[in-house]
Amino acid sequence: MVQHNPIHSTSFAALADATRRGVLEQLTRADASITDLADRFDMTLTGMKKHVGVLEQAGLVVTEKIGRVRTCRIGPSRLEAEMAWIAKYREVWDARFDALDHVVDQLKRTEKKRQRRNKRSP
Amino acid sequence: MVQHNPIHSTSFAALADATRRGVLEQLTRADASITDLADRFDMTLTGMKKHVGVLEQAGLVVTEKIGRVRTCRIGPSRLEAEMAWIAKYREVWDARFDALDHVVDQLKRTEKKRQRRNKRSP
Repeated sequence: MVQHNPIHSTSFAALADATRRGVLEQLTRADASITDLADRFDMTLTGMKKHVGVLEQAGLVVTEKIGRVRTCRIGPSRLEAEMAWIAKYREVWDARFDALDHVVDQLKRTEKKRQRRNKRSP
Repeated sequence: MVQHNPIHSTSFAALADATRRGVLEQLTRADASITDLADRFDMTLTGMKKHVGVLEQAGLVVTEKIGRVRTCRIGPSRLEAEMAWIAKYREVWDARFDALDHVVDQLKRTEKKRQRRNKRSP
């Protein structure tokens, strides 16, 4: 029953931080060095390196070291599997609540019928 | 620049675990007690309580204690904001790579023209 999908877990964990989401948004606009990102997000170089490492592990960022500068750009992951998981969850969520609505409607209709019957034969 | 959206972070963190995603999938099929879930996922009661707590905080699960049994059902969150964030990211990701494709196409075309010119005037 337990499902192990390391891709899902790593990507969702990478997205579970506002700074990391901010870094991704920033990199969709332009590539940036780790120093640029640390400055922009008001963070130590060590802190930003850790965040970039988490994003890199999830395939959301790729880095390349040229000389002494490590440049970050958006990685190959389009969050395909993660999007699909959420979409599927929403689909079954909707179906379940639609079913619940149907039950509530049925109960209301039965109750109305009962009330009408009671009115006719007091 | 740094964006703080606690809803995103909490939900993505809740989804960053295979057991928690499994619990959500299970609850879309039927409500379950924490004991049922612990059995099904071969986990201690304490471990499962922690997982359910994380899901509850994200609005993905609601629990209700009747007598000594705590029943879990899927919560109000349809992962609306999280879905929107990923969809937006994919949109800009595509746009960025389309732009890159365009640059590569341009370079290829220029190179072909150059080769053709070279053939004509050897």
